[in-house]
This record gives sequence, structure tokens and C-alpha cells, in this order.
Amino acid sequence: MRVAILAHEKFPDRAKTALGILRYADHDTVAVLDRATAGQRVADHVPDVRDAPIVGEMADLEPEAVDTLLIGIAPIGGGFDESWREDVLTALEYGCDVVSGLHHFLAEDEEFARLAAEHDCEIRDVRNPPADLTVADGVADEVDAEVILTVGTDCSVGKMTTTMELARDARDAGHDAAVIPTGQTGIMIEGWGNPIDRVVSDFTAGAVEEMILEKGDDHDYLFVEGQGSIVHPAYSPVSLGILHGSMADTLVLCHEAGREAIHGYESFSLPSIPTYVDLYESVAAPVAATDVVAGALNTAGLEDDADARDAVDDYADALGAPATDVLRFGTDALLEELC
Amino acid sequence: MRVAILAHEKFPDRAKTALGILRYADHDTVAVLDRATAGQRVADHVPDVRDAPIVGEMADLEPEAVDTLLIGIAPIGGGFDESWREDVLTALEYGCDVVSGLHHFLAEDEEFARLAAEHDCEIRDVRNPPADLTVADGVADEVDAEVILTVGTDCSVGKMTTTMELARDARDAGHDAAVIPTGQTGIMIEGWGNPIDRVVSDFTAGAVEEMILEKGDDHDYLFVEGQGSIVHPAYSPVSLGILHGSMADTLVLCHEAGREAIHGYESFSLPSIPTYVDLYESVAAPVAATDVVAGALNTAGLEDDADARDAVDDYADALGAPATDVLRFGTDALLEELC
Repeated sequence: MRVAILAHEKFPDRAKTALGILRYADHDTVAVLDRATAGQRVADHVPDVRDAPIVGEMADLEPEAVDTLLIGIAPIGGGFDESWREDVLTALEYGCDVVSGLHHFLAEDEEFARLAAEHDCEIRDVRNPPADLTVADGVADEVDAEVILTVGTDCSVGKMTTTMELARDARDAGHDAAVIPTGQTGIMIEGWGNPIDRVVSDFTAGAVEEMILEKGDDHDYLFVEGQGSIVHPAYSPVSLGILHGSMADTLVLCHEAGREAIHGYESFSLPSIPTYVDLYESVAAPVAATDVVAGALNTAGLEDDADARDAVDDYADALGAPATDVLRFGTDALLEELC
Repeated sequence: MRVAILAHEKFPDRAKTALGILRYADHDTVAVLDRATAGQRVADHVPDVRDAPIVGEMADLEPEAVDTLLIGIAPIGGGFDESWREDVLTALEYGCDVVSGLHHFLAEDEEFARLAAEHDCEIRDVRNPPADLTVADGVADEVDAEVILTVGTDCSVGKMTTTMELARDARDAGHDAAVIPTGQTGIMIEGWGNPIDRVVSDFTAGAVEEMILEKGDDHDYLFVEGQGSIVHPAYSPVSLGILHGSMADTLVLCHEAGREAIHGYESFSLPSIPTYVDLYESVAAPVAATDVVAGALNTAGLEDDADARDAVDDYADALGAPATDVLRFGTDALLEELC
């Protein structure tokens, strides 16, 4: 799949989905669309991901050079920015499919829908869950694969990144490992998955279970992308649905160094790391017993490697389990425990 | 509001919604529609609820005698039974509103929609959540009211009944108390509310918070109808969203005497009562500290009052808090603790 990734005026620091695709997806990235940095290259900004040219608009690409336009950014609220319309129209005129993780569904836009029909393109809103989801049966533990779930102390602490790094490195080490994507970035990287935060509340666990059953007998390891945190004032139901729906064998607790309060909900302090371990394990147990066997600490906020190493060591002590920063120090310490 | 309640072939034992309405709603019930027991009266079957005649079909009622048809039963799966179509058509021809808690939305039925428009009637699918719900802000604890939430060891153990009994008896004792309805029966009884199990997963807590904020400064006590259980293999996200979204001050743990496994998921044993207390309190604490201060035990399966009393005493011991069967022994022991 030859893709262009739209990331206008947010590349690279506020383009989490674009970066995730560049870092982890198998796609052949033809270009990043960013009118603010057009003419430069991805490698000028981010050294450790797949390189690609940055262009100002879709029309700068040849129609025959690209198959798919991915929307790689999301404004607060998940709306569609009208300044992107011309790019989407050009993509559809080129015969490209368009993939979006916005809350605002592009397939419901009349102009896009008409043009997509005309040019035989698919508009795929990955945040629009399939209509045939239903309640969990409580049978995800019947699959052959070992199911490893990333859980978190909060949102945006590195659950998606940890999942992708672990799965890739497990495969590189010769294991048969797959990712179970539960959010828009994971779905756009993997090309399939259920957007658990958009599912009907009653079907939260069922939408995870369905994916485990679909993949669980074809692989030795499933790395399940977690969401939110079990004590998040708004998103805890999504986290718990993934915990109970996946019936995970083992948990990896993800945290950001120095985070003390819930992001965007600063009046709520994070409980201690041992409290998180106890909560995840004790709430999981009546459905499927599991243990936090490893930790992933995001130390991006610490400049000095020695400080980061100290923070990881402290985190491992608090967990009573091996820990790492998956991007800074690699995944070896975790994979030894997990695979 | 003068209502007819449709309960064909399921009255009274499999007509939970119809019974809830007869027991707790302020409506003037003109008739129950049940072709199996037509000609009898509600009081012939259930002594302790509002009495009404039972008729075979909507056409047995005079058009000017009734304002609203309530669908008081739900088949497994929540579908619409075509044998009810004639009753709904007659109701709409009479100019009646139709209120339904089915998963299958009646307002989307072309024939019903056309007839409703023609006769200026409203079709209200209470299980269809409002479109303007959003994520929780974590502020439900700012309201003046004391927020009391019923939580459960499982589904169908008496959370709705306990909520309704406590709120009614609190009002009878002179307190200013209101119910926060979270499921279809509660919504049909109270005439408003959000069907939390049908809400987008991300908005589960927000849909509860919105209701608390709407009512919380107008009353001294809010009794929040809980759903499911925090360790249910399928429905735990709904339970946790209500727990965190309501930021309840106190919890009442509801249980059924003798229940040992999760209903419909018999391979999952219920943990011990102290484990439930610990789980609810410890998962709630980082968002809003709360305690299980009372228990409600459903002893309907025990014939003998002395056995029921023993079961309630054992339950209170396990809880370390006062307990009762709200229908059998009243709510005094609980209200003393709660109000």
C-alpha cells in the first residue's frame, strides 16, 4: 500500500497518528502532507522512523504514485478541518482510498461520498465501529495464544508504542506475534481492529473478545493495545472492557516518568504504582487471573540518559518486576519476561 | 399520564419493566395488555402493586381513555415481536405516544413513523441515547446532594428495585430525594434518564455525570440506579462508568441470596462479599472515595421468612454493615444509615 499521510501544521510533534504509521506500519509512505514544512524530509525532524519527503498538498503528488490518503492528525474534538478538503477531494479524484480516525465521519460528507462513488474509492472511518458487535461471552481465554495487555496509569503514557515495540521485537526474535489494535492509530497501522472507545458501552468487552477469538489460534503471542486507565474519571470503562474482554494472561503497566496527576484532570492525583498493580490484578481476577509482570516507563521528558536509567530502575523497584523505556533502552528486559 | 402497558404472554413473572412501572411509576395505569390473562386483573397475580384490568389488545380500550402505550416486556435480544404490531398501530391511530425500551427502535419503523407523524404522536425509544453526550469532567462530586449508588454482585440482583424503594421511602420520611435512572425500566418509571448500557464507551461516565449535575443541586439525596457488576465478564464497563461518573458518596451493595455464579456465565464464580466491598471501594477511591455502608439482599427465592431473616443477618455480617431485603423487610435499617 503506497500512502500519503496528511499532517498539516502539526508534524511531527502533534501528529501522533502520522508518527505511529511512519514508525510501525508496513506501508510504503510516498509523502507526508504538511504545508508548514513542505520541501523538507521526515528525517530532518525525526531520525528513527521511516523517511519520506514532505509536500505541501496532495496535488503535488502524481496520481499514479499513491493508493491511499491517511489522515494522520486529529484536532481537539476530532472534527474535520476544512483546510484539508482540497487534499481529500484530490485524493478521491486520483482514485485513492481515504482512511480517517476522526470522530467526524468523512463517509458521511456528501461531496466526499459522491466523489468516492464516482471514482470507485473507499472512505474508511476507522472510528466508526462495525454494526455487528455484541456482548462478550467470557471466552477469550480459550485461544491458544498467550495474551499480553498493556495497561496504564493514565492516557498518553505509551501503551500503543509499547504494544507495537514489543510485537515487532518479538517477531524479530523469531516469535509468532500479532497486535490487537483497539484505537485509531493502532487500527491505521495494522489495517484492521475495533475502535473500543466508540463502541456501545455494553459491547466494550465483546468487541475486544471478538478480535482475540479471530486471531488467537493463529499466533503464539497477542499483544493487546490498552487504552486509558482503570481509575480515569472519564475513560475507565474503556480500560476495564479491554481488561475483562481480553482475559489477558499477563499485563505490562505503562507510565510516564514524573506524571503525578491525570492528564487534563489535574485535580486527580495518580495513586502509587503498587496501588495500580493491585487494582488491575484484583479487578481482573474474578474474570481471568493475571499479573503485572513488567513495566514500560516513558522517559521522553528526561534529557539525561542516566536520569532516565535511574527513573526506570525506581519504576522497576516500585513494580517488583522488570522495566524499561521501550524507545530509549529497547525491549529486551521485557521480552525475556514475556516470551 | 394515562398509560396502557403491553406485556403479552409474559405477565407477571417475565415482565420486569411492566411490574416496575406498576410498582413505582406515578402513571395512571388504564390497563395491562396481555392476551394470555385477558379478563383478569393485576391484583389477581401481584398483590402489592397498583391494580389495573388486563385486556387482550389495545383495541379493547376507548381512544379517549389512554394517552400512552408503554412496551413493558423485552424478548431475549431486545427485538420487536410482530404480534405486537397491531397494538402499536392502534395506539398511534388513537393519538397515543408510544414508549419503548427495546434495542430495536420503533421510531425507525417506517409504518410506525408515518402513522405517528399523521396523528402527531411521539415514539420514544428510551434505549436510544441522546446525541449530545460527551466525556465526563470529573465534577459530579460538586453537587449539593448526597449521592447514593446501588452496586451489585451481578446483574438482576435488585439494584433498580432497591433504588426505587429507598427513594420512595426516603421521600415518605420527609426527605427531598430523587432517582437517577440509568436503564430502560428506570427511565420508563421516571420519564427521563440516559440508557447507560447503550452509550458510546467513552461517554459512559459522562452520561451519568450529566444527570447528576442536572439534578444534584435541587435535591438533598440522589439515588443512582446501578447496573451490572464490576467483575461481570461483559457488563463491567457499564458498572464502572456509573461508579466513576456518579462520584457516589456512599454505596449500597445488592446481592441475591444463594447466587454463586454469574447469571448466564455460570463458569464464573462470584467472589466473596468482602472482596466485592474491597473492589468497589478501592477502584472508586482514586476518583472519589466512597464506602459500602449498607446492603440489600434479594431473598425472593427463600420461602420461609425466618430463613430470609437469617440470610439477611449473614449478609450484614459479611458486609460489616446493616442489610435488609427491601421488599420483604422494608428499608428502615438502610435509611437510618443513609439519610
